[in-house]
Amino acid sequence: MSELSEIGANRSFGGWHKRFRHQSEVLGCEMVFAVYLPPAAEQGPVPALWWLSGLTCTDENFMQKAGAHRVAAELGMTIICPDTSPRGTDYPGEHDSYDFGSGAGFYLNAAREPWSRSYRMYDYVVRELPELVSEHLPVSQRQSISGHSMGGHGAMICALKNPGRYASVSAFAPICHPSECDWGRKAFSGYLGEDRLEWVKWDSCELIRGGGKVPELLVDQGEGDNFLADGQLKPEALEQVCEEHGIPLTLRRQAGYDHSYFFIASFIEDHLRYHWEFLSR
Amino acid sequence: MSELSEIGANRSFGGWHKRFRHQSEVLGCEMVFAVYLPPAAEQGPVPALWWLSGLTCTDENFMQKAGAHRVAAELGMTIICPDTSPRGTDYPGEHDSYDFGSGAGFYLNAAREPWSRSYRMYDYVVRELPELVSEHLPVSQRQSISGHSMGGHGAMICALKNPGRYASVSAFAPICHPSECDWGRKAFSGYLGEDRLEWVKWDSCELIRGGGKVPELLVDQGEGDNFLADGQLKPEALEQVCEEHGIPLTLRRQAGYDHSYFFIASFIEDHLRYHWEFLSR
Repeated sequence: MSELSEIGANRSFGGWHKRFRHQSEVLGCEMVFAVYLPPAAEQGPVPALWWLSGLTCTDENFMQKAGAHRVAAELGMTIICPDTSPRGTDYPGEHDSYDFGSGAGFYLNAAREPWSRSYRMYDYVVRELPELVSEHLPVSQRQSISGHSMGGHGAMICALKNPGRYASVSAFAPICHPSECDWGRKAFSGYLGEDRLEWVKWDSCELIRGGGKVPELLVDQGEGDNFLADGQLKPEALEQVCEEHGIPLTLRRQAGYDHSYFFIASFIEDHLRYHWEFLSR
Repeated sequence: MSELSEIGANRSFGGWHKRFRHQSEVLGCEMVFAVYLPPAAEQGPVPALWWLSGLTCTDENFMQKAGAHRVAAELGMTIICPDTSPRGTDYPGEHDSYDFGSGAGFYLNAAREPWSRSYRMYDYVVRELPELVSEHLPVSQRQSISGHSMGGHGAMICALKNPGRYASVSAFAPICHPSECDWGRKAFSGYLGEDRLEWVKWDSCELIRGGGKVPELLVDQGEGDNFLADGQLKPEALEQVCEEHGIPLTLRRQAGYDHSYFFIASFIEDHLRYHWEFLSR
């Protein structure tokens, strides 16, 4: 049985924000993650939302900036925030850029050396951490998933690759089609190599094109987002492939909003209530 | 006329979070402050809440972590967050500790060299910045004040020293009696010297003892706050002096809450609605 050591606890909206450290076997390093436990979790297991953060983030950004605890407390929903990459390793180039290596795990299993030794965030987020959480924390098997930017990409691929595993999936400004944007091409060629057959396994649009299904999808995208203008996010590609493959997508284009946590905070309540509809069924 | 240069703007809850840089004459340096403008500010001047942050903070902490924009947007209230000290100066020892010098201006006017040359955060917050704000931004003369820790001390002294200037005042875990705690003694002896007659001008409890008045006072204090246990905050001294001098104090001791922004976020809605009762009269 794996051990969790509690490294922080803050009372928040009648519940607890807690941070834990543990040894990850999948990643081969020590990892930290955060949980918001609503007051209802004192009575027994409650449904959970997984939140996957974007480039450069840790377990802390969403917990501190999204303003999500209030509604999670009201609904009785746990929120779990993993980190965004392995930590404590030191491969050549690992810490040189914000969009590759540390803080930029892309929620995939790397296929190329040396990254394949520890960059296995997909297995960590989908398998190892959920097992650890259900072993130690009052979390039920009703679980949904959401995320921002790189983490929106992560949420969508986790749901698409595991039908039925998540009650619902949503995303804020996700990297919809990583094979076709600069961030994704850099990450995929670095972690996976140049074999495009490997890339399609980790690209939401390609997964849907290959038959991947989710019952429905909620996506918010700020129209003032500079990464939208730069072509990193490509919600139009997601829109097209969802239409072609019969996946009901609610894509809300939010006028004037950028890529920041102010955008996430403005609409997180909608997402939490959306997920709760599925989680409470 | 002083100039403001906008250095950032994020859409948030239908309004705008904006950051401005300007040359402060009072402090003799460039300063940055932040404003949340609710949707109602597009129609004309709206009431404002001044928020004074604690040790080590800048204009950013409250805006990013307090989750205050949602209710401010609903009420139609502007929030103004100044920085916590002059910036860009380099006096001996200015950047050596978290509780003195940069990030620790204590909202007073320093009397001792070299600090008296620029550490005049009281004049900045009470006089220069309000003039600048009313010149450039859609803010009415209905204004209240609140803050956290060192900023809770700041909010209380600003209100006590300027009767009628602020419609209402509240604080989170304020340093109630700085003359009698380690943080305050270090700051006051450094900025003011050893003359205790100088200290009483900047200590809420002493100001009340000397006849200072506010119509009423709302204070939240976490009972799990390590700085409460360390004797830095002393709400019991405030409680006693308010009782002796007939100032209605609502002191809410919140079980389990610490000194963090999770505590502030949990109760900021109460404070915003409290101030709005006065601001909307």
